[in-house]
Amino acid sequence: MSVYTKYHVSQDQPRVELHDNLSLTGAEVSVNALPAGGSVPFAHAHKQNEEIYCVTSGRGKAIIDGETIELVAGDWLRVAPEGRRQFFAAEDEGLSYICIQVKANSLEGYTMTDGIIC
Amino acid sequence: MSVYTKYHVSQDQPRVELHDNLSLTGAEVSVNALPAGGSVPFAHAHKQNEEIYCVTSGRGKAIIDGETIELVAGDWLRVAPEGRRQFFAAEDEGLSYICIQVKANSLEGYTMTDGIIC
Repeated sequence: MSVYTKYHVSQDQPRVELHDNLSLTGAEVSVNALPAGGSVPFAHAHKQNEEIYCVTSGRGKAIIDGETIELVAGDWLRVAPEGRRQFFAAEDEGLSYICIQVKANSLEGYTMTDGIIC
Repeated sequence: MSVYTKYHVSQDQPRVELHDNLSLTGAEVSVNALPAGGSVPFAHAHKQNEEIYCVTSGRGKAIIDGETIELVAGDWLRVAPEGRRQFFAAEDEGLSYICIQVKANSLEGYTMTDGIIC
């Protein structure tokens, strides 16, 4: 496999999944855009994956295990595998977000303990 | 540990590391902003971590193993652990990007094979 893979995501796509497009081996990443008033049509949890969400633009909310969390651009969320989650755009504004899916407890060293200045 | 953690990253910070702020267990994520003409002051590789970069705004380039890759907002890059990488903003425009660090080959199931509709 090549040492790197590049892929461009344009802003007009409702959902792009990057695992295969980037040849990822340690994560799945999706880029998502809900229109104003829209939502993911179901709640979900995970067997073993932690999810990390980044709100890149707009406004909305997540409901996690019955608790409502208001979301604006710049907000980040970690959700444990067992959390029952569902995402909603605001009624008057869309919500764009990145979702990163990784195996919980899989990270060992990082940054100073995994990086090599060269 | 709580089922979720939320953290807000404001746009005026040059670098924010999220591992501890979000209690991450499967990734480290950093949010980075290089000013016009700026660069990460060193090249680096990794022992075992794959890195996934997302350009959120601006323009610049990465040099990976001597190859120059032009970058604009919406570009995503996977870099294998051994790739020697360095990031640069354009001379006349800054470069903002997210860097996701995960253990290479750590992902097992994902989405349809790890998610549970509930």
